[in-house]
Amino acid sequence: MDPDSVAKAFVEHYYRTFDTNRAALVGLYQEGSMLSFEGEKFHGAAAIATKLTSLPFTKCAHTVVTVDCQPAGPTGGMLVFVSGSLQVDGEHHIKFSQMFHLMPLGPGNFYVHNDMFRLNYG
Amino acid sequence: MDPDSVAKAFVEHYYRTFDTNRAALVGLYQEGSMLSFEGEKFHGAAAIATKLTSLPFTKCAHTVVTVDCQPAGPTGGMLVFVSGSLQVDGEHHIKFSQMFHLMPLGPGNFYVHNDMFRLNYG
Repeated sequence: MDPDSVAKAFVEHYYRTFDTNRAALVGLYQEGSMLSFEGEKFHGAAAIATKLTSLPFTKCAHTVVTVDCQPAGPTGGMLVFVSGSLQVDGEHHIKFSQMFHLMPLGPGNFYVHNDMFRLNYG
Repeated sequence: MDPDSVAKAFVEHYYRTFDTNRAALVGLYQEGSMLSFEGEKFHGAAAIATKLTSLPFTKCAHTVVTVDCQPAGPTGGMLVFVSGSLQVDGEHHIKFSQMFHLMPLGPGNFYVHNDMFRLNYG
């Protein structure tokens, strides 16, 4: 698969998991993973999963609008940059931007090393 | 300087250069640099600078709202994630998101290896 297809498949998988079974996101992170969520920092799969599963809403639906990707350099990682909107508990759609740095675990297999998320109010 | 201060200093320098002397941005990129600008891809400092200097406006003013940063992994790079708004030629403010992957050239000296930019319409 070309990098753009890998990025799109990852993004689809990530938000489907987020919206249907948030606890399963833990499997996409490792001990060295980092999350910046609206400026708050979390380190390691356990802390990241605790944050994501404790977000105070029941239902969430992400709509992805753009996915950009680039190879990250000599480590074989990939940078994925997403914009879209999300709707929690049937409220207004809110725009968001998120970037992921995916690091290879093996052929076709990646984990999320860096994750930065921001809502774009307005 | 701690990573957050380095990221903030870079972001300030980048947009000040963009808004006052766009042609000088070429010095922040190298041969291996990549830019995704609204989904269009450019490779190498020369192609990136050609794109940035040919954007069809005379005046531009960026306002940065958030800057997040994380170490990118074993290469010593740094990921910088920006949200803000920009105003070209006195028109409406438009929101944007941008991410940079800075790679070290030496102590306290970085170049932009990856750059992904998106306007957030709406």
